[in-house]
Amino acid sequence: MVVNQVESGLAAVEQKLRTVVNSDISLLQDASQHIIVSGGKRLRPRLAFLAYLAAGGEKLELVVPLAAAVELVHTATLVHDDINDHSLTRRGKVTVHARWGRTFALLTGDYLFSKVYELMAPYGAEYNVIMADACVSLVEGETLQAAAAKAGSIDQETYKKIIARKTASLFEAAACMGARLAGGDETTVQALGQYAYNLGLAFQIVDDILDIIGDPETLGKPVGGDLVQGAGVLMAHNGHPAEIGAPVAEADPIQAMMARLRESGAIEVAHLQAQEMARRAREALAPLPDSPARRELLSLVDLVVERER
Amino acid sequence: MVVNQVESGLAAVEQKLRTVVNSDISLLQDASQHIIVSGGKRLRPRLAFLAYLAAGGEKLELVVPLAAAVELVHTATLVHDDINDHSLTRRGKVTVHARWGRTFALLTGDYLFSKVYELMAPYGAEYNVIMADACVSLVEGETLQAAAAKAGSIDQETYKKIIARKTASLFEAAACMGARLAGGDETTVQALGQYAYNLGLAFQIVDDILDIIGDPETLGKPVGGDLVQGAGVLMAHNGHPAEIGAPVAEADPIQAMMARLRESGAIEVAHLQAQEMARRAREALAPLPDSPARRELLSLVDLVVERER
Repeated sequence: MVVNQVESGLAAVEQKLRTVVNSDISLLQDASQHIIVSGGKRLRPRLAFLAYLAAGGEKLELVVPLAAAVELVHTATLVHDDINDHSLTRRGKVTVHARWGRTFALLTGDYLFSKVYELMAPYGAEYNVIMADACVSLVEGETLQAAAAKAGSIDQETYKKIIARKTASLFEAAACMGARLAGGDETTVQALGQYAYNLGLAFQIVDDILDIIGDPETLGKPVGGDLVQGAGVLMAHNGHPAEIGAPVAEADPIQAMMARLRESGAIEVAHLQAQEMARRAREALAPLPDSPARRELLSLVDLVVERER
Repeated sequence: MVVNQVESGLAAVEQKLRTVVNSDISLLQDASQHIIVSGGKRLRPRLAFLAYLAAGGEKLELVVPLAAAVELVHTATLVHDDINDHSLTRRGKVTVHARWGRTFALLTGDYLFSKVYELMAPYGAEYNVIMADACVSLVEGETLQAAAAKAGSIDQETYKKIIARKTASLFEAAACMGARLAGGDETTVQALGQYAYNLGLAFQIVDDILDIIGDPETLGKPVGGDLVQGAGVLMAHNGHPAEIGAPVAEADPIQAMMARLRESGAIEVAHLQAQEMARRAREALAPLPDSPARRELLSLVDLVVERER
């Protein structure tokens, strides 16, 4: 029942995403739809829906524009990230950057971000403040990550700050907004926010692990793209700053670095960290009464930690 | 009196702009402040203030965050534009792109855009819809312009569409929001919106003319940067699409193209067009009763059309 509700909500989000980017400037519409139809896990809208239901909401359609907006923030940052990372593929398809070039990718990201604003406007001040804060955090996290990549080194504290801001903040915002929209009390909203925040941390650690050990075909993108993150993962193991810029004798330094990370045992340690975040996510749900939505949120934690893409 | 009010409002906007970009990620704060303190005409916040006063508003401080937000939209697009145009100077200073590099310039633009959202959130749905629409228009206009630059040609209709969306829409939004905030009736809001829209068109035509004939030192940036726009101006004169990509024998094709534009008489025609838009701007104010703010708005038209930078 809850699963069906969420699935129909997600279908409405897909519809909303495809129509909200309509424009008489066909390039913007085409590039936007290109990244939207290429899919993605839609974890953030799912969180908004489940938090809404777990907080007692009964009109899921009210969450649709908000859920679409949260996904669109994520989508806009992917388009801009791919410019900065010179990525050629994403979700198994060519990136907007590779297909339309840098200038139009930059503008497409800006366009998607403007559409976030359009979708969120009707929700009023409280929600827009939450969303604005999440967007600010996200850009700060991306900036820290780019600075670490440029410096070629990262410490554990910075790694944690990066994943908290670039990933966990938007997860948290999605759940908080969903719970608030359901009229949840402060305890409920905080509980669901904390759940999502920790889920976001677990998700990002697993993402960074998959970037090192994942199967490129399953992932739909090349591995090794986020080696600074990988270095952060390594850091968790050896306790001192990982110098990813350190000279490596091998022909392909990225491959060599990845091999070193795999062999160091850091992956296992990072997995343990992800599991700890997962535990905190589950624990955060303690104040909430049992419900089908709450059970779904618990299953989602397992899915996130055990996923292979 | 009105002049003093507006000037103190603008001083509050400067203060707001400088503090709103505070961040523990010093790079974002530094790059944001770099572009903010480099100045600019602050025309858009001025419009918001004057429209508010002309519509009978009496608490100018209520307009400050909104006026800062409108200026920040403009600022964010400048930072992104400078990436796409490979510009090295802006307002007589090195660009964010030239100083911090492409990746951080992209993120700084995104950061400023997120801050727009933060500033606007408290105003509620009606204002956020207006602002979101203006942001969408702006990105559409920028995209059309980039597509014309890539194609190397532009027609008059496209030129008009570009300047309407990339410039006039945000001018209009600033005035509409200011007038609404003052509690102006629909006629007043529409009148001030139409005024600002036409002022925006005049402003952009003059901007494009100055890019061809202006003094680089007075402008604070190199001329010839927006030659596609220049071609649009030329178009207004000769009535057929301007092929800016046409082969030119001279050593410096940009200089040659600019000379051709200067000698063609197109500049005079473009000036006449700007004056026509200025006339429409003045005319739009007809429904408003005489007031010091209305008189300031009329003077602003002259300033925009006669400016040299």
